[in-house]
Amino acid sequence: MTSTPIDALRINGPRLWDSLMELAKIGATKKGGVCRLTLTDLDRQGRDLVVSWGKAAGLAITVDQIGNVFMRRAGRDNSLAPIMMGSHVDTQPTGGKFDGNFGVLAGLEVVRTLNDQGIETDAPIEVALWTNEEGSRFVPVMMGSGVFAKAFTLQTAYDAKDTAGTTVREELERIGYLGTEVPGQHPVAKYFEAHIEQGPVLEDNDKVIGVVEGVLGIRWYDCTVTGMEAHAGPTPMHLRKDAMQVAAQIMQEVVAIALRYQPHGRGTVGMVHVHPNSRNVIPGTVKFSIDMRNVDAKLLDTMDVDLRAYAAKLEQQTGMPIVIEEVSHYAAVPFHPECVAAVRKAAEQLGYSNMPAVSGAGHDAIYVARLAPAGMIFIPCKDGISHNEIESAEPEHVTAGCNVLLHAVLGSAIG
Amino acid sequence: MTSTPIDALRINGPRLWDSLMELAKIGATKKGGVCRLTLTDLDRQGRDLVVSWGKAAGLAITVDQIGNVFMRRAGRDNSLAPIMMGSHVDTQPTGGKFDGNFGVLAGLEVVRTLNDQGIETDAPIEVALWTNEEGSRFVPVMMGSGVFAKAFTLQTAYDAKDTAGTTVREELERIGYLGTEVPGQHPVAKYFEAHIEQGPVLEDNDKVIGVVEGVLGIRWYDCTVTGMEAHAGPTPMHLRKDAMQVAAQIMQEVVAIALRYQPHGRGTVGMVHVHPNSRNVIPGTVKFSIDMRNVDAKLLDTMDVDLRAYAAKLEQQTGMPIVIEEVSHYAAVPFHPECVAAVRKAAEQLGYSNMPAVSGAGHDAIYVARLAPAGMIFIPCKDGISHNEIESAEPEHVTAGCNVLLHAVLGSAIG
Repeated sequence: MTSTPIDALRINGPRLWDSLMELAKIGATKKGGVCRLTLTDLDRQGRDLVVSWGKAAGLAITVDQIGNVFMRRAGRDNSLAPIMMGSHVDTQPTGGKFDGNFGVLAGLEVVRTLNDQGIETDAPIEVALWTNEEGSRFVPVMMGSGVFAKAFTLQTAYDAKDTAGTTVREELERIGYLGTEVPGQHPVAKYFEAHIEQGPVLEDNDKVIGVVEGVLGIRWYDCTVTGMEAHAGPTPMHLRKDAMQVAAQIMQEVVAIALRYQPHGRGTVGMVHVHPNSRNVIPGTVKFSIDMRNVDAKLLDTMDVDLRAYAAKLEQQTGMPIVIEEVSHYAAVPFHPECVAAVRKAAEQLGYSNMPAVSGAGHDAIYVARLAPAGMIFIPCKDGISHNEIESAEPEHVTAGCNVLLHAVLGSAIG
Repeated sequence: MTSTPIDALRINGPRLWDSLMELAKIGATKKGGVCRLTLTDLDRQGRDLVVSWGKAAGLAITVDQIGNVFMRRAGRDNSLAPIMMGSHVDTQPTGGKFDGNFGVLAGLEVVRTLNDQGIETDAPIEVALWTNEEGSRFVPVMMGSGVFAKAFTLQTAYDAKDTAGTTVREELERIGYLGTEVPGQHPVAKYFEAHIEQGPVLEDNDKVIGVVEGVLGIRWYDCTVTGMEAHAGPTPMHLRKDAMQVAAQIMQEVVAIALRYQPHGRGTVGMVHVHPNSRNVIPGTVKFSIDMRNVDAKLLDTMDVDLRAYAAKLEQQTGMPIVIEEVSHYAAVPFHPECVAAVRKAAEQLGYSNMPAVSGAGHDAIYVARLAPAGMIFIPCKDGISHNEIESAEPEHVTAGCNVLLHAVLGSAIG
């Protein structure tokens, strides 16, 4: 009953683009971005629009107790767990049009394309919309997928308050997305998430598709160096205990360590506080953050060992106490070989330039991967800029990413 | 009419110590320090007490239009310009008992000692009390001696306001120290200022007397490094423009430059501001202060050249703009060879361990040196700590410093 052979199937790029632009009107900012904070009236409007489009495409809607929305297209064998696509539609306060929204609407466009061609799949296909991925109004971030994967409890999520003291549960109820399904009980055979890269690598390599092999593990530290405050004038160099100078050495070692563990090692000192922070006083205390990442848990552990060894040596050399306290640790997440292969195969078949990629940022796919084989598809975003109103992606890249999603899903949904 | 030969003359240590402790009661803090901000009621009480002691010692009092107080002991030839001793009695908000007060009361003790022994000098001897040396309530600092030396105008000083909007002139009038003598018209033959070191060098070298050869020149800069903000996760190391990493290199070079120009080179980065100062964002801008000092103008200029050359090279290497803006420049002040020699000779004759010293901090002697040969005498302060309530000096050092002052003055005042 289909006129087009599966391999020749392509999504409708202009239709997907129009949907992205239509959804972006809800919470649109003057600078061309979107402010649609999770569980606000604007988030409700966004959700309602997507759900109305899903219903128009014949999808059956389910909402779970944390407000995750699942839109289902039946398959030939509905006893099979669904092949799931998805992401989120909430944004940062100064967010863009593509982060999250692209993954959800690309899923919808895949369904619309299958409908156009009257293509049946063996397994059902679903489009998921996860609650509060951004975490800018309520923490923890990636809340909907986190509860779904039991990374934390439903109650923890319900009790989360915004700065006004309003809870997640109150807001879910208010906007009409407090569902009945128990989070995590929803079956998933495989999960694919299309997303803008939020980094500069694809653009720098002039590639259209990033075949995401995994997500970087993260270790966050607070490092405190204690020297001795003294007047910058009367204190000669050899009698100083200058905490800033010792801190500067550690800051540079953080980068040296990252460079030792390429291609995916990352080292960043983003936050620095100097005490007393006065022009003519030798710093007595310097406290700064350290962010180290790598794609592999072993490599990240080695980076941790290198950092602590360097600090211990420097403490001994200088006689100044150096305290390194780990404040967060997120494990690296390798995506499932079958999903990674499916994405690569689709990109190759479609003739899109592509390269292996890693995600340095968090995504719902990280939590879903705990329950089912998962994978991600990256497309370039202009200058690698995201979480910004000037976030931008090219229509042809949006189309390409959605075509890869289509064929990765079909490869899994048709036996 | 004197019973004691000049060389055997010694000041009365316990009397000087008692006067220091008595004066320290005015504005005494719980932690054992003193808070006697310039031109407050407490400053008036402090000035009144010192002046009453001066009158009791038979000194003639003159106050000039900026509130500097001169207490004069006549000589055999009163057509000669006076040999002047002095310092200040205002303190920091959390100041100590010795900073400034020692220099004034040591001068008074010299006079008392000469009176006890009925010793006449050829030239008159004066004790000066300079207004607002600390600058913690009104800027500019070293205000009284600065107006005296015409470093800035009387009107500039009069118009200076404290945080409540009160002017210097209003307060001088209110506390009764708005004199009539035109600042700078008061003659000075030579000037000697005894002071605690406010640094750790004498203590570190176990010396009692610092023969101060000059005051370090200071150059203050604001340095701004501009990189590019980016997400610490998705941005690989080779695509970063991390302003903090470039700043850290400059910070270390500031110290390297100071170490190249020893023994008196100083280099300090005391103030650092990182933007956006977020744990997982690569710093886009880092602004920090640079404080460079040396005893000689040529050396300080060379340090400036080195700094700018390093920054230019680094800017070229990294492609990140580095702007170095000089915000202040105080010239180095070498003290007069005759005064330095007089201090050294006195210390040697008295058998006190001594060493050449430089002042890294500002003192009234710096401005007085513009009008007359000037010199300073340093004594150790505990752990080099000053501008602090725990500021402390040993009675025997206080006595020694005053004995050196006595003999340096006598060597100049007796032909």
